[in-house]
Amino acid sequence: MEKIRMGILGYGNLGRGVELAIEACPDIKLVGIYTRRAPASINPALSTTKVYSFERALENKDEIDVMILCGGSATDLEVQSPQMAAIYNIVDSFDAHPRIGEHFKKVDKIAMENNHTAIISVGWDPGLFSLNRLLGEAILPQGESHTFWGKGVSQGHSDALRRIQGVAGAVQYTIPKQEALNIARTGSAGNAEPGKLTPRDKHLRECYVVLEEGADPEKVKQAIVTMPDYFADYDTIVNFISKEELQVQHKGMPHGGFSLRRGKTGKYSENSHLYEFSLQLESNPEFTASVLVAYGRAAYRLTEKGDFGGKTILDVAPGLLSPKSGELLRAELL
Amino acid sequence: MEKIRMGILGYGNLGRGVELAIEACPDIKLVGIYTRRAPASINPALSTTKVYSFERALENKDEIDVMILCGGSATDLEVQSPQMAAIYNIVDSFDAHPRIGEHFKKVDKIAMENNHTAIISVGWDPGLFSLNRLLGEAILPQGESHTFWGKGVSQGHSDALRRIQGVAGAVQYTIPKQEALNIARTGSAGNAEPGKLTPRDKHLRECYVVLEEGADPEKVKQAIVTMPDYFADYDTIVNFISKEELQVQHKGMPHGGFSLRRGKTGKYSENSHLYEFSLQLESNPEFTASVLVAYGRAAYRLTEKGDFGGKTILDVAPGLLSPKSGELLRAELL
Repeated sequence: MEKIRMGILGYGNLGRGVELAIEACPDIKLVGIYTRRAPASINPALSTTKVYSFERALENKDEIDVMILCGGSATDLEVQSPQMAAIYNIVDSFDAHPRIGEHFKKVDKIAMENNHTAIISVGWDPGLFSLNRLLGEAILPQGESHTFWGKGVSQGHSDALRRIQGVAGAVQYTIPKQEALNIARTGSAGNAEPGKLTPRDKHLRECYVVLEEGADPEKVKQAIVTMPDYFADYDTIVNFISKEELQVQHKGMPHGGFSLRRGKTGKYSENSHLYEFSLQLESNPEFTASVLVAYGRAAYRLTEKGDFGGKTILDVAPGLLSPKSGELLRAELL
Repeated sequence: MEKIRMGILGYGNLGRGVELAIEACPDIKLVGIYTRRAPASINPALSTTKVYSFERALENKDEIDVMILCGGSATDLEVQSPQMAAIYNIVDSFDAHPRIGEHFKKVDKIAMENNHTAIISVGWDPGLFSLNRLLGEAILPQGESHTFWGKGVSQGHSDALRRIQGVAGAVQYTIPKQEALNIARTGSAGNAEPGKLTPRDKHLRECYVVLEEGADPEKVKQAIVTMPDYFADYDTIVNFISKEELQVQHKGMPHGGFSLRRGKTGKYSENSHLYEFSLQLESNPEFTASVLVAYGRAAYRLTEKGDFGGKTILDVAPGLLSPKSGELLRAELL
């Protein structure tokens, strides 16, 4: 069997995760990492991995079947996804929710014009959680959906902490509150109703902060807990720790969450059902990367079938993610 | 918008569930129930539902877009699915695992010859659980999958109890063992390993039995706990109850279960991830029926696109299940 040839564009935590995820798939071959930095400055996880310049990605289009885009949504992907969709089949993890519609349209048009398949916004949220929100509401139209995130590191909230004057380093964990999770699962608890759960009810924000020398802890704490959008609407715990403790105890990137649908059926809506999907991830970037690679396999198969254009996880038949044939899947998994 | 016109073939618990599930979907219209019994003997859940003879289903093919087959796998579907796939787009819930491959081939051939779409083996297992087993292993190739069923009524095991001499009525609940579930989730516990979990480790079987007058409880109990395939390999609890208690306390048809994947990523397989999908259903037939109707919507859309032939849940892009447009789904659910 010919292996599917994939490339990685951009080499941070996500790119490293894709490198390792490809290594775990016997039907996929990594052609190389493509980077805007000096290739020699990149230190890949595997000694066999080749590193090329970004320019080579623009030129040698015949050496790659699917390019996995590993840049960030904030600046990279808005430019790189349309650019790469003209040259390659692509998968990206674009996660800036309000701009997904616009991003899809741009990428779809270019992929269509160039007979490529481009799967955008792949990962777990957006991604697997979106898939479960869809299944939940399509199967149980009479119901309520809830998403909880964590326990895990929020990069956005950690970055917000680091921008505060007097903060030398910080990590923020988003933690789902067990009581709210129970209310969402059971439909009620005492006087509580799932529909009335506030941001404060649903998640706790726990911060581990290293102070700069001479900084006033009380002032930093107040700056954190009153910060609009990020912390003011939540119960926020602030722990001050040493630089060493931050490095040793908080270097991991765990994450996860719960996507629930509680719905009713029956002539009198007398039967309740709980549909629940959850993830507990020790490495958010490595798991996300594993999802990207599985959808890279699907992008290759879609393009082989002539099914071009922009796609999201919602447009991809699940069987395309597996290296197994339809017959084998029916025998083993159905 | 034109509504999708669906028919129901066969009217037991599942057919009744489909009748109610269609009622909950504003974009779908129930044409009628088709039955081999005397139509006048059928008492539909809704007063507006029409009941026709089985023969009418063979004749009036232009009044229905998708026929939902609600017969049993044991005898009905092997005959009816191929027969109906020649006339209609169909959805069935064929769940006799070892014969799914063969059933698929038969239905696929006939659907293809007649330009119909036929989605077989729809429900939650086979069905949503199959989908999650596939996603789990495609995303985390280095890992272990586990399925637990319950707490819920097993029709097969309840039937087995009723065939024992001296038993006047019975219900059997399959109950997942919490300890085994924890081992599957965490990868180990003490000396236990998920891969070594036996049927006895994973599930408990609890029976509620009404004795016939004069039957010897000890003899009945022995017949149960030693029954090969059904009970001998499990810890089985037998409770003797009155006919009245059986009717009042055990008339529901709850079910559910857990589909887990525990996998590893990282250069040294140092990061573990838990992927978990679960259902807690107060009415197994009503939830299964709701899945059938959502996939009925997908069958209609596939046939509109000219995507004919046999399909399973693994072949259907999730977006096709929803009445919403791709644009709306991207805005609301992604």
